[in-house]
Amino acid sequence: MTFRARHLLGIEQLSPLEITTILDLADRYVDLNRRTVKQSDVLSGMTQINMFFENSTRTQASFELAGKRLGADVMNMSVAASSVKKGETLIDTAMTLNAMHPDLLVVRHGASGAVNLLASKVNCAVLNAGDGRHEHPTQALLDALTIRRAKGRIQRLTVAICGDIAHSRVARSNLILLGKMENRIRLIAPPTLMPAGVQDFGCELFDDMKKGLEGADVVMMLRLQKERMDGGFIPSEREYYHRYGLDAEKLGFAKPDAIVMHPGPMNRGVEIDGELADDINRSVIQEQVEMGVAVRMACMDLLARNLRAERGRALAGAMP
Amino acid sequence: MTFRARHLLGIEQLSPLEITTILDLADRYVDLNRRTVKQSDVLSGMTQINMFFENSTRTQASFELAGKRLGADVMNMSVAASSVKKGETLIDTAMTLNAMHPDLLVVRHGASGAVNLLASKVNCAVLNAGDGRHEHPTQALLDALTIRRAKGRIQRLTVAICGDIAHSRVARSNLILLGKMENRIRLIAPPTLMPAGVQDFGCELFDDMKKGLEGADVVMMLRLQKERMDGGFIPSEREYYHRYGLDAEKLGFAKPDAIVMHPGPMNRGVEIDGELADDINRSVIQEQVEMGVAVRMACMDLLARNLRAERGRALAGAMP
Amino acid sequence: MTFRARHLLGIEQLSPLEITTILDLADRYVDLNRRTVKQSDVLSGMTQINMFFENSTRTQASFELAGKRLGADVMNMSVAASSVKKGETLIDTAMTLNAMHPDLLVVRHGASGAVNLLASKVNCAVLNAGDGRHEHPTQALLDALTIRRAKGRIQRLTVAICGDIAHSRVARSNLILLGKMENRIRLIAPPTLMPAGVQDFGCELFDDMKKGLEGADVVMMLRLQKERMDGGFIPSEREYYHRYGLDAEKLGFAKPDAIVMHPGPMNRGVEIDGELADDINRSVIQEQVEMGVAVRMACMDLLARNLRAERGRALAGAMP
Repeated sequence: MTFRARHLLGIEQLSPLEITTILDLADRYVDLNRRTVKQSDVLSGMTQINMFFENSTRTQASFELAGKRLGADVMNMSVAASSVKKGETLIDTAMTLNAMHPDLLVVRHGASGAVNLLASKVNCAVLNAGDGRHEHPTQALLDALTIRRAKGRIQRLTVAICGDIAHSRVARSNLILLGKMENRIRLIAPPTLMPAGVQDFGCELFDDMKKGLEGADVVMMLRLQKERMDGGFIPSEREYYHRYGLDAEKLGFAKPDAIVMHPGPMNRGVEIDGELADDINRSVIQEQVEMGVAVRMACMDLLARNLRAERGRALAGAMP
Repeated sequence: MTFRARHLLGIEQLSPLEITTILDLADRYVDLNRRTVKQSDVLSGMTQINMFFENSTRTQASFELAGKRLGADVMNMSVAASSVKKGETLIDTAMTLNAMHPDLLVVRHGASGAVNLLASKVNCAVLNAGDGRHEHPTQALLDALTIRRAKGRIQRLTVAICGDIAHSRVARSNLILLGKMENRIRLIAPPTLMPAGVQDFGCELFDDMKKGLEGADVVMMLRLQKERMDGGFIPSEREYYHRYGLDAEKLGFAKPDAIVMHPGPMNRGVEIDGELADDINRSVIQEQVEMGVAVRMACMDLLARNLRAERGRALAGAMP
Repeated sequence: MTFRARHLLGIEQLSPLEITTILDLADRYVDLNRRTVKQSDVLSGMTQINMFFENSTRTQASFELAGKRLGADVMNMSVAASSVKKGETLIDTAMTLNAMHPDLLVVRHGASGAVNLLASKVNCAVLNAGDGRHEHPTQALLDALTIRRAKGRIQRLTVAICGDIAHSRVARSNLILLGKMENRIRLIAPPTLMPAGVQDFGCELFDDMKKGLEGADVVMMLRLQKERMDGGFIPSEREYYHRYGLDAEKLGFAKPDAIVMHPGPMNRGVEIDGELADDINRSVIQEQVEMGVAVRMACMDLLARNLRAERGRALAGAMP
């Protein structure tokens, strides 16, 4: 078994072999119509709790669907609204849910590192569904699977990541994953949205789409995290679109068969031209969502196997 | 097979035979105690997403229960709170959920036509759970089933619809259904709540309960849609009740065996006298809720059959 | 059969034998790791609706998990947000859900007595998940189970209940249960948080932790219900902690093997020292949460048996 992790906290902790294991399994969960296949026995008898301290319809729906397709009992806790208001700490909330003995805990939190802290306290498997500006590992994995299905490989590609890199955990997890798999990474952003020190990840920096996109196999657009900006980051949405929004003309700088990606939700006419986003010859944005369910199924399947093995060993160790 | 639709968008698109098919099947889902019977195999392996852009505990609960009784995996998305705030369009939200490959999408939206637009973009079956002032087809179908069970038929009846007709998609869907089934329809409302052009539906208009209720077999009261009124529609709730609220005295103008209906939630003492609403000899309001689950089960069952047949044909067509 | 109730409205209505029946069954639902065991056939085909007029992540999650572990279809209605705003009364909301024929209705409401009123109107089994300052029976039952597992009995113990007794339904249900089982009860609170007339329950009152805790087998701390206080109840949180917050020093006044309990969510450093709360040699706070799921499984199991028996009798009575 090549996947031994207890939790899925970030791409950081995964080896290239583990990444490949997840992608291979996810691929097997998808049929010819890119529908995921129902396999109710995989998580049968297991309980999955989705604990979202930040709202996210799409990510929560994707995890919920993945769990249900595998036969888990799924419970959604939108924690923002609840005990946190009564003065309970993150850890107490988590410990309470932990005491209900779920098997899988899917957590999204606004603070970087919150999910790792939580994982150190509980005895179920924790999946990071996005923590602050830190990591969003299942997004990077679904992006990798989408790329691999389009390009036939997830190595030795030139990938341009464009837009609000400063506020994006999606960019950060992708940077780490694409680096581990030995791709050439280019970051394109206005200087105000390019985080300091990012060149240490071994990527090239650009503030110009023309130069940055040259020769790219993959063009990965990011969402402008308006809710994390307090003004001053971009001149105006119109000006931003003019310089950094992806349209057919700018895409012309990339390779002729370059694919277009976006993690959603999109701001059409700001980050990307609406027609281009819908062009099934170039855009794989719908497929990213489809692969999201498959990748989450694969991650939960692998973590559940490890959990069962661990419990089996504990039981064997308790025998006389 | 007499029901061929891909979606359930409105009563408008249904033939009398299709309406009868739905009612007949719904009837079979109800036992002698008017409880719906659990039949987990009907939607087994299917995923139903409830996507409510407007809150509605009762309609959402009814669809959720109907899906679970038929064995579907049901997911609730209260979309108001989420991506819509991040600047995503209705269509993008729908396309994202569509890419997760649900089988049934139940949608409520505040804008007339929004559900039809959405249905044209996705490749699952869409059920309209109410869109703006346009249609609320399952409400009209459950009303029809309740009437048919009480009166033995859903043809050649005199039905009075009373109250806030101007803001009511319930009234509109009922008008269309009752018209298709060749009933005599009377609309009773103060002039400010009677929409222009409604006589084109082939109904008689009244602003007086006494004349309007004369000879009615069915008295269907509507909810005052206060949240859609910006003042000036009614003089006062007290005055409204005096003139248009249904009580035992006004009900005396209708036939002696006339039944009383209300789609809920009720404003007791405004639209209807509380005691009359609870009088099981006249009021079928509880039965309306009961038939709601059965009708939704029937609609989802029929749409799922068509979906399976379509997929079977696609598969057969792809064979060598 | 020693448990004949139709509903679980309060500890008030339970006999000591019924309490023991619930605890015995709950114990059987827990394995050696204090995990509850999945038994999907017990509530198979049954529908449980959680109707929370007040938010409570932990109690709702516990009931949801308990229902799913027993195979029920579980639906959550957060009613605060919905029809209630449209002017519908509590009873109409309940009657609407009742007409959907759920089998189990779990209700939390801010008004004392609301759940009893509701139970008198519906024909499913109602479980009180907390109503105003009245009762919270499953909390008292899970506390009793936790005590019994730690002390080997739930009789003839000295139990100190400390803190905000005035606003606490938890305290009230525990008082009744512990009294019925013939324990010695001590209440410790500042005079502003000690309700008038509480000595009628047959307990001793203290406003001093040293005297109150002397010889206690069980120290049950309560949450400060800040949201129900309008100022003036306590001097300051710091002063409150100094006089009434449980720490190792004050716990020294109790028996050397006294256990520490808290219903959660905790205000660490106000009601209880954080380290003490986490000390698994003294604190059974995590086990309380674990037993919560088991006790709720037992209660729903017993009510479902009675419901099935009642329906069986009704069916037999209807036979010729």
